Amino acid sequence: MSKKPMEVDRYEIRFSGSGGQGIVTAAIILAEAIASEGKYAVCQTQNYGPEARGGASKADIVVSQDVVDYPKPIKLDLLLAMNQASCDAYVCDLKPRGLLIVDATLVSQIPIQRVIALPFSQIARDVSGKDLAANMVALGAVGCVTDIVSLESLEKALLARIPTGTEEMNEKAFSAGVEAAGKIDLRALPAAIGEDDDEV
Amino acid sequence: MSKKPMEVDRYEIRFSGSGGQGIVTAAIILAEAIASEGKYAVCQTQNYGPEARGGASKADIVVSQDVVDYPKPIKLDLLLAMNQASCDAYVCDLKPRGLLIVDATLVSQIPIQRVIALPFSQIARDVSGKDLAANMVALGAVGCVTDIVSLESLEKALLARIPTGTEEMNEKAFSAGVEAAGKIDLRALPAAIGEDDDEV
Repeated sequence: MSKKPMEVDRYEIRFSGSGGQGIVTAAIILAEAIASEGKYAVCQTQNYGPEARGGASKADIVVSQDVVDYPKPIKLDLLLAMNQASCDAYVCDLKPRGLLIVDATLVSQIPIQRVIALPFSQIARDVSGKDLAANMVALGAVGCVTDIVSLESLEKALLARIPTGTEEMNEKAFSAGVEAAGKIDLRALPAAIGEDDDEV
Repeated sequence: MSKKPMEVDRYEIRFSGSGGQGIVTAAIILAEAIASEGKYAVCQTQNYGPEARGGASKADIVVSQDVVDYPKPIKLDLLLAMNQASCDAYVCDLKPRGLLIVDATLVSQIPIQRVIALPFSQIARDVSGKDLAANMVALGAVGCVTDIVSLESLEKALLARIPTGTEEMNEKAFSAGVEAAGKIDLRALPAAIGEDDDEV
C-alpha cells in the first residue's frame, strides 16, 4: 500500500465505541502522531453528556492546514466504529467519500458498502490473549489506510502514551492491525457511499 | 473545606505544563469525573500545532449546563500551570475572578496574587519517590478547591483511567494533593486578579 503524504485543508476523524474500549487513548495517540509531524494543526476532543448518542462513546480529531478554528467535525472523512451502537449512531456523519472502519467482531450489521471490516477484537485476542488491545489493532488499521500520518510517527506516539510494561502487547496488536489492513485493496471499495461502482 | 454543589452555566478549565507531565491524562480524568455525575455536559480538548504558545502544552475542559456549543474556552475560571512557560503563556486567559493554581516546585515567578501555589512535584517525590505523579497531586488540589465535582467522583475516574499496577502511587499522590490544598483558606485570597482586598 502506498503512503504518499496527503495534502488536505481539513480532515475529520471520529473514533467511536463503548466506554472501556480505549477509544480516547487511541484518538490521543493518533492526534499526537499527526501533530508530531509538524505539518498540520490538530484538535482532539471528547464530548460527554447530552451530545453522546445512545450510549456510544466518541473521540474526535480535526486536522487542518492552519489553526483549527471550528474544532467540532462537520462531516467525517474517517469513522472508526468499535461497536454496533456507535456505527449506527455516527455513520450518517460520514462524507459521501468518507471511509467507515468497523470492528467486525462486534459490528455485524454494516449499513454501507464503503467500509473496511476487520475483526479487531478477535485479532487482539489472537495476538495477546485478550480483547484489551483491540483499540491498538484498529489504530494500526487506521494508520495503514489513511495517508494523514506515517506508521512510524504513529508507532512512536503509541510508545510514548501507553503504560510501561504493555509495550510488547500493544506493539504486537498495532502491527497485526497494520498487516490485516494492508491486505485490503482500497480501490476495490465503492468510490462513494451509496454508489456501487466498485472496480473489482 | 465545604463542597457545596456548584451551579454554573459555563465553567472553563485549562491544565497546562510541558509534554510528559501528564497534563492530558489529568484533564481527561477531571472531564470524565464531572461527566460521570450527569449534571453537566463536558467538552475536553487538546490542541496541537500553531495554537500552542512557547512550548506550553495544554488541555482544556469546558463544562456547561447544556450541550457545549463553543468548545474552546473563552475566559478561564481555573488555570493549572505545571511549569513557568505555561503560567506565563496562559495567565492572561483567566477571568478577573478566575483562580490560578501552580506547581510551586517549577513555577517561581507567579504573576498574580489570586493563586494557590503548592509544590506538586516535590509532594509527588515525597509520597512516591518520583515526580511522575505530580499531575495526580495537582488533580487532588484542583478537586479540593473547585466545587464543580466531588472528590469521590474524581477518585473513581482516576482509578478507571490510570494503568493497572500504579493505583497505589496515584491514589497516594491524589490524596496528598487534596490534603495540601485543604489547608489553604480560599477566602484569604484576593477576590479578583489585580485586587488586593484579601480578608486576612
